[in-house]
Amino acid sequence: MAGNLQKKMLEAIESELQRQAGRLDQPRTRQFHEMLAYHMGWTGEGAGAQAAGKRIRPLLLLLSLVSAHGGESGREDYVNWLHAIPVAASVELIHNFSLVHDDIQDNSELRRGRKTVWVKWGAPMAINVGDALFVIANQAALDLQDHFPAPMVVRAARILNDCCLELTKGQFLDMSYEDRSDLAIGDYMPMVSGKTSALLSACTQVGALLGYAQGEAVECFRLFGYHLGFAFQVQDDILGIWGDEAVTGKSAASDLVEGKNSLPVLYGLEKNGRFARRWREGPIAPAEVKEVASMLEDEGGKNFAEEVSEEETRKALDFLDKANPQGEAGEVLLGLANLLLKRNQ
Amino acid sequence: MAGNLQKKMLEAIESELQRQAGRLDQPRTRQFHEMLAYHMGWTGEGAGAQAAGKRIRPLLLLLSLVSAHGGESGREDYVNWLHAIPVAASVELIHNFSLVHDDIQDNSELRRGRKTVWVKWGAPMAINVGDALFVIANQAALDLQDHFPAPMVVRAARILNDCCLELTKGQFLDMSYEDRSDLAIGDYMPMVSGKTSALLSACTQVGALLGYAQGEAVECFRLFGYHLGFAFQVQDDILGIWGDEAVTGKSAASDLVEGKNSLPVLYGLEKNGRFARRWREGPIAPAEVKEVASMLEDEGGKNFAEEVSEEETRKALDFLDKANPQGEAGEVLLGLANLLLKRNQ
Repeated sequence: MAGNLQKKMLEAIESELQRQAGRLDQPRTRQFHEMLAYHMGWTGEGAGAQAAGKRIRPLLLLLSLVSAHGGESGREDYVNWLHAIPVAASVELIHNFSLVHDDIQDNSELRRGRKTVWVKWGAPMAINVGDALFVIANQAALDLQDHFPAPMVVRAARILNDCCLELTKGQFLDMSYEDRSDLAIGDYMPMVSGKTSALLSACTQVGALLGYAQGEAVECFRLFGYHLGFAFQVQDDILGIWGDEAVTGKSAASDLVEGKNSLPVLYGLEKNGRFARRWREGPIAPAEVKEVASMLEDEGGKNFAEEVSEEETRKALDFLDKANPQGEAGEVLLGLANLLLKRNQ
Repeated sequence: MAGNLQKKMLEAIESELQRQAGRLDQPRTRQFHEMLAYHMGWTGEGAGAQAAGKRIRPLLLLLSLVSAHGGESGREDYVNWLHAIPVAASVELIHNFSLVHDDIQDNSELRRGRKTVWVKWGAPMAINVGDALFVIANQAALDLQDHFPAPMVVRAARILNDCCLELTKGQFLDMSYEDRSDLAIGDYMPMVSGKTSALLSACTQVGALLGYAQGEAVECFRLFGYHLGFAFQVQDDILGIWGDEAVTGKSAASDLVEGKNSLPVLYGLEKNGRFARRWREGPIAPAEVKEVASMLEDEGGKNFAEEVSEEETRKALDFLDKANPQGEAGEVLLGLANLLLKRNQ
């Protein structure tokens, strides 16, 4: 049963994403449309579910919406989640706009195992692809007007654009950290807050809002998304250093080699011990990964990150509990949160 | 008198632009804010009016708004133009977002005589600066809600985002033309329509809309902006090849050296004569500019562009006349249009 709702939502999300991107599918801009379609995982080499990603953000939005009112069509405050599908597409488009620009900024050649847009078509075209994804994200959000009152559309659009400004701030901090040698744990939160938590919290907040969540429930949904994003990012940081892929085999995939200022690294820098000295000496080679990872673990970096992740997970689940999600959608939402928060199990 | 209104508007525009950009003026993102402030012409080497540009787009918007209702505060449909100042800032921010990304895409090292953002801070940061300008442009447009009904805010935001999609399409065409050798006159309009006319027409349309223009006036204001943009662009194309700066002295400033697919060039390519043969042979050196410009003039490229410019100018002024702009603002608007359309005199 629960699987059914999620499947229906995923199908509707994909179809709406394609409809929105279709704004570029005109004779003179067909190749432009093709660039977006490739990035979204629909066409080109390696196209398919793996290339498309999990569409977690639109799912979170729709599940928050339905679970906010229980999803019972008999109720007075019932909202058909299909009516909110444009804004579900919007949050996924925002996410992908940031990925396309991020890949240029980080000089990343692969995304979900495929060549990135800038590698295939050059950075100038890729900048424009990212811009178009963001414009279409805005257009999609405004399409809410077909089924929601205008003041609510404006409120949703405001939340999304406020979140996008946080994204650019997080991106700025991330890039500016590359030149700094004085980073500490306190520098982590403002960056991750912008890069990961802002969009996840916008998803759950907008969902609850459009689902006419009552009282403090909108704020609880928002904070659920916020801490979910935080916990998710810290787990990603742990896996980036101590995960199977990072340590064994493809050691080049280690965040240590990439020089990423993740939470365990910032902890180590603040400790100012052996790890910090090695980090400041310069790039870490794949052959050193195992040793440097052990060094950081011995100094407490892994433990610390695990504690933060657990704390944030607890907060996320507490806020979800307080939000009191209803019915089948509520179960699916809890399941999705657990999946995200315990994905290393 | 007329000079007074324009001056007041320009001061209000500048102050609103600074207020909007101030969203980034926080302890951790001060350097990020500085990048925007530099690009907008407020700070850094060479800061000042010359670096800031003429703020033509917000002026067009505000003058369309006031002249749509005559600007008489006694009238029932009177709208204080200061209430629309956030969306005036929005169109200028959209323009500047596109400039910052354009400079990266074109590899341009100078903008209004100063180093471009990517030259000063690198392309990754500059991509993010452009993104932030666009996000703030959206936030500013939504700020209209303080003084206008929500359905009108949504309508304005839709017009602006539709126009931004046209911008990305025009940008795509412009970049894709670089690899093509089969271009003709028919390829010009779709590109310029997106790159120049879309934003100017959005300015006059949104202005008229917020000024509660009656009947077909909104459409007349929109078409005035559209043809104004077209005529302006074609004049720019003519100056780019036969203007003083292009021919004498700084010949490197010639569009011929830059290989720009402007209207006279596309005309020459369609003629398929001496000019087309030379163009297809490869880059034109500054020393050749005079000769190649003469070649194109002899084949009728200059005449043709002048005719198109005159035709578009006539259309623009006809639509402005039909829009029937009122009062002092109407005079200033006509004056501004004449200034833009005859700026080579």
